[in-house]
Amino acid sequence: MAKAKRVEGGPVAPRGFRAAGVFCDIKQLGTGKGSDKGAKRDLALLVSDTPCTVAGMFTTNQICAAPVKLCVARMRSGCARAVVANSGNANACTGPRGMKDAETMARLAGEALGVTPAEVLVASTGRIGVALPMGNIAKGIAAAALDLGDDPAHAGFAVEAIMTSDTRPKQLAVEFLLGGKKVRLGGMCKGAGMIHPGMSADGKRPAQGLHATMLAFLTTDATVAHGPLQKALSQAVAKSFNRVTVDGDMSTNDTVLLLANGLAGNAPVRSASGADYAAFCRALDEVCAALAGMIARDGEGVHRVVTVRVHGARTAADADAAARAIANSALVKTSWHGGDPNWGRILCAAGYSAAKVVEEKVDIGYSAPGSGRIVYSLKKGRPTSTSFARLCEAVAPAEFDLHVFLNLGTYGTAIVAADLTEDYVDFNKGDVTDPASLGG
Amino acid sequence: MAKAKRVEGGPVAPRGFRAAGVFCDIKQLGTGKGSDKGAKRDLALLVSDTPCTVAGMFTTNQICAAPVKLCVARMRSGCARAVVANSGNANACTGPRGMKDAETMARLAGEALGVTPAEVLVASTGRIGVALPMGNIAKGIAAAALDLGDDPAHAGFAVEAIMTSDTRPKQLAVEFLLGGKKVRLGGMCKGAGMIHPGMSADGKRPAQGLHATMLAFLTTDATVAHGPLQKALSQAVAKSFNRVTVDGDMSTNDTVLLLANGLAGNAPVRSASGADYAAFCRALDEVCAALAGMIARDGEGVHRVVTVRVHGARTAADADAAARAIANSALVKTSWHGGDPNWGRILCAAGYSAAKVVEEKVDIGYSAPGSGRIVYSLKKGRPTSTSFARLCEAVAPAEFDLHVFLNLGTYGTAIVAADLTEDYVDFNKGDVTDPASLGG
Repeated sequence: MAKAKRVEGGPVAPRGFRAAGVFCDIKQLGTGKGSDKGAKRDLALLVSDTPCTVAGMFTTNQICAAPVKLCVARMRSGCARAVVANSGNANACTGPRGMKDAETMARLAGEALGVTPAEVLVASTGRIGVALPMGNIAKGIAAAALDLGDDPAHAGFAVEAIMTSDTRPKQLAVEFLLGGKKVRLGGMCKGAGMIHPGMSADGKRPAQGLHATMLAFLTTDATVAHGPLQKALSQAVAKSFNRVTVDGDMSTNDTVLLLANGLAGNAPVRSASGADYAAFCRALDEVCAALAGMIARDGEGVHRVVTVRVHGARTAADADAAARAIANSALVKTSWHGGDPNWGRILCAAGYSAAKVVEEKVDIGYSAPGSGRIVYSLKKGRPTSTSFARLCEAVAPAEFDLHVFLNLGTYGTAIVAADLTEDYVDFNKGDVTDPASLGG
Repeated sequence: MAKAKRVEGGPVAPRGFRAAGVFCDIKQLGTGKGSDKGAKRDLALLVSDTPCTVAGMFTTNQICAAPVKLCVARMRSGCARAVVANSGNANACTGPRGMKDAETMARLAGEALGVTPAEVLVASTGRIGVALPMGNIAKGIAAAALDLGDDPAHAGFAVEAIMTSDTRPKQLAVEFLLGGKKVRLGGMCKGAGMIHPGMSADGKRPAQGLHATMLAFLTTDATVAHGPLQKALSQAVAKSFNRVTVDGDMSTNDTVLLLANGLAGNAPVRSASGADYAAFCRALDEVCAALAGMIARDGEGVHRVVTVRVHGARTAADADAAARAIANSALVKTSWHGGDPNWGRILCAAGYSAAKVVEEKVDIGYSAPGSGRIVYSLKKGRPTSTSFARLCEAVAPAEFDLHVFLNLGTYGTAIVAADLTEDYVDFNKGDVTDPASLGG
């Protein structure tokens, strides 16, 4: 299957979407006096010229932030038109005031954008347990609403505004044919730490496992009804964002939103079947997978990204359990950092997972990303004759695939995982002399 | 309850036990030419003058080492007399040859000690997936059998021989009254990495959770029948070794053995009830808890040891799930390293655990180890007015207790956990230019 054509503009590539990103000092750095000019933007707006069908996926953490609660409630209507998002403060563990603040953000954005407040969704990321500086937020929303644009520069401002420990902006858009019409699908996201999303549409935990703050806002000008839109998003997230792990910690704020405004004029996709639905899912899968990969590659302190591919598990749940145990093992992750093919730790982690594992049946190998040319370190539970130097060579690249064949069944899965480095520890131990550095 | 009297001699403090520890170059450093004199001992023998009743607890990892398989099989007889143990090589993932080598170790030790080979138990720790150097092992067993002693110095040699990345020897013995007779209980252990034991007597995973190579060999001169001895050990391990986590990785080799030779002449403890059984359990609990604490404090790269105490959980399983999620969270562990009271990460980890958690009900606080004087950072899900400086002070000591009150029920638990440091990462990333450094 050919990949969809890449286009410029990320979330504003589809017709009818505009974005803005401004600095309003949400961390209350209080630099003031005009020196804020150089500060990172921290408040984003994304708005459609016309009403949208909306779908969403949210953290399944029982401790979930006020903006997540607001979004989950607003999903019921199936429609929305704008997103207001901030970095620097997660508005999590902020009690009734937090809920009121999230609602105020929606109302202020609605007023500034000229849309119904109920059509505005809210997302936040940053420090936990601190009330939002609502005066600054109000100024930010007002400023952003005056600076909306549908060009790549404005998309870039919005992307910057949701970044926290991210070192690189993450956005993407594709163009593809849907029922003969050119449609576009774009998106932006942020990740970096607390990355092990386990999102669902309804707070119920997905069967395939659990566990960033990661935020992703997706837009399309396709016409898709609410049911198929949510189904398409649920399956795309299950295969992408929910299969990435940096540190195994699931955030309180994980949010993925998909807004479809229908301005492409394609024949409406009314059900989760047929060629048009399939084509839409393909494009959505591609965008989500690409954005999820950017999150893994830009994780806090990440030096290597390893796709853990489990093959031949007895059940889908077994495949997932084995892959996640390996992907979250501190010893396996440090060995990746060290460029060490250490199959012993890999086999050990699979062995303590909930998956059925039979030592004498396990094969372990490494390949270039997506390649079938596998260098094996273990066959049927026994080390191969491949030289240690050759194995080290296979795990030396910044990205590689780790293959674990359980040889007990037909189920498989893949989890995109990060190594564990001194840089991750150094970053996350924080600086207690600067409480503002201690993010959630 | 007064603590039992501490005595010298660790595993040889009880009557009738002797120990030895020698260097036989199991890592095949091949220093040779007499320069081996200064090398760390790597083979230990522990033997009773008379037959013993035996109990054991073993890793529940499905990938389990040959010596573990041998011990599990030999537990069925309920009796044993000696243990041969080595460091430097785990004899794990070594296939049929590994099983044969474990049996050969038992046979050689039996012959050298003049006991039936079936009465010899075997334990190994170190690198995974490499065959044991049986020539060196044979020489080591012969040398150790000629150097047995019942004095503290010989106990120290044996302790040294099972150390891997441990920086300190770990041993202990107590004396207490059992039915009016003075009896002794001693032990030695090793830990350091791959520490999240989830041992059971039968390979079935314990209900309270999962997850070193940690080895512990316990000895007593008390007379206790097999049934109560195993029951006493199972409950003691559930409360001690199985409640320690350094890195969340469960080893292929975790083994705890308890040998009781009856030379104290107490009235036999025939059932798991009554005052004598209770007194024995108290002493065993004390020794296991003390040894487990030594393992946590000497974990690889550990700077701080935190006892995670969950209170008020809805069920025992919930208490365990919440405590383990917190104890194994990379973000929580790095915050401990940083001296950061970060309650947001703690609450977040509890929230993504399988335990029922209601944000508005949770209290979080810190105290000195075992103290009820708690400094709270969170009450009913909201930050307290306690100053950040005061909270930092509470988490500054090298050891502290973290209290999480779920306030949903009556169940509680405690897990002894380690912080996550740059030193841990540096140690475990290994040195691929020296494959011998890449332990399992």
